[in-house]
Amino acid sequence: MLTVHHLGISQSERIVWLCEELEIPYQLIRYDRDPKTRLAPEEYKALHPFGTAPVINDGDVVLAESGAIIDYIISKYGNGRFTLKADHSNFADYLFWYHFANGSMMQALSIDLVVNRISGGTRDPVIESLLDRVYRAFDLVEKRLSIFDYFAGNEFTASDIMMLFPLTTMRVYTPLDLKPYPSIRAYLKRIGTRPAYQRAMKKGDPDLIPLLD
Amino acid sequence: MLTVHHLGISQSERIVWLCEELEIPYQLIRYDRDPKTRLAPEEYKALHPFGTAPVINDGDVVLAESGAIIDYIISKYGNGRFTLKADHSNFADYLFWYHFANGSMMQALSIDLVVNRISGGTRDPVIESLLDRVYRAFDLVEKRLSIFDYFAGNEFTASDIMMLFPLTTMRVYTPLDLKPYPSIRAYLKRIGTRPAYQRAMKKGDPDLIPLLD
Repeated sequence: MLTVHHLGISQSERIVWLCEELEIPYQLIRYDRDPKTRLAPEEYKALHPFGTAPVINDGDVVLAESGAIIDYIISKYGNGRFTLKADHSNFADYLFWYHFANGSMMQALSIDLVVNRISGGTRDPVIESLLDRVYRAFDLVEKRLSIFDYFAGNEFTASDIMMLFPLTTMRVYTPLDLKPYPSIRAYLKRIGTRPAYQRAMKKGDPDLIPLLD
Repeated sequence: MLTVHHLGISQSERIVWLCEELEIPYQLIRYDRDPKTRLAPEEYKALHPFGTAPVINDGDVVLAESGAIIDYIISKYGNGRFTLKADHSNFADYLFWYHFANGSMMQALSIDLVVNRISGGTRDPVIESLLDRVYRAFDLVEKRLSIFDYFAGNEFTASDIMMLFPLTTMRVYTPLDLKPYPSIRAYLKRIGTRPAYQRAMKKGDPDLIPLLD
C-alpha cells in the first residue's frame, strides 16, 4: 500500500493530488509545521535522510523528491497516464515543464525568499540575475498558458501537477501579485474546477484556501 | 542534427558528456562567460526565453533544463540507454538521484552561494535550515557511494550524469573541501577514467581542469 506523507502547506500536496487524479488506493498521513518556525516537525524530517517534503513509502521503498515520486507512481500504478511518449509532438514541452518546475522555478523562488529574509547586504550582478529569474519564469508561464490550456499542450499531464505548486501554495512564502498574468489566473481557475484537485486540497490542507487567484 | 549550446563552466557540460557517452552525432557550440561578471553572454541568454544553460536545438525544438534535455536525447537518440525501467529493483533510486540533482542539491548550493555573497544580514531558522541542506546532501551522497559504485546501483546511468555537476564544476562557484567524503572522491576518480567524460570536458571546457578531487 502506498503511503503519502503530507507536510502541511508544502510541495507534497502534488502527490496527494496525483493519487486523487489517478484514483488509486493510498494512505495519507498529515504532519503540521512548527507553529513558530514554520519548519517541518522532527518526525517528518526523520522520514527520509534529506528531510524534505514530499516523502512516500511503498513496501520497502522510501522515496523523496516530487519529480521522482510522480514518475514512480505513474509508472508503477498509473499505467503511464498523464505522461507523453517520445513520439508525441509535445514531448519536449512535457519534459521541459516537468523539470523546470523544481529545477529552475522553485529554485528562483527559494532564492527570492532567502534574499528577502536577509536584511541589507550587497546586491551584485549575480544576485540580481538570480532574482530576475522569478519574473522571467512567470513571464514564460504566462506566455505558455496564453497559447495552450495546459503546460504540455491541450491535455492535462503530470507537468501541470509539477508546475502548480510554484504558482499557488508557494505564494504563502513568496507573495506575488498575479494581476499582470491573466492567462495564469485563467489556468488556475481551470485547475480549481477539477474534482481531484479539490479533494486533494481538502484532505491535505483543510485549513488553507487554495491560492487560485 | 542535434546542436548543443555549451556555456563555459556550466551545467551544459552534462549534455556534451551525454552525447559523448551515447556516441551520437551532434554539433557543439561554445560560449564564454563575461570575464567580469561571470554571467552568460547576451547571445547565450537569447537562445531560450529563460536564458539559462543548457539549451539544445533539434530541428524546430528548442529545449532547456538539464533533466528535460537528457530525457529527451536518451528517448529520441539513445534507445533508452542509461535509464532503468519500472521493473528494475533500482528504479526508485534511479529516479531519486536523477531528480535530486537539480530539484534539491543544486538549489541548496545556489542558496549557499547567495547567502555567502550577501554580506551581513540575519540568519533565522529558515535560512539555517536551507543552508544545512548542503551538508545533508553531501552526507547522503557519501553514504550512497559507500555502498554502490554509481548512483542508481552498480551500473552507470543518467543519474550519474545529473549528479556529477554539483559534485565537481559547481565547486568553482561554491568551494567545498571533499576530504571528509572518501567515497565521493573515489567515485569522482572512477568517472574521471571514462573516455567519454574526458572527451566532453576537453571539448567543452578545454581550459578547466575537472574538479575530481
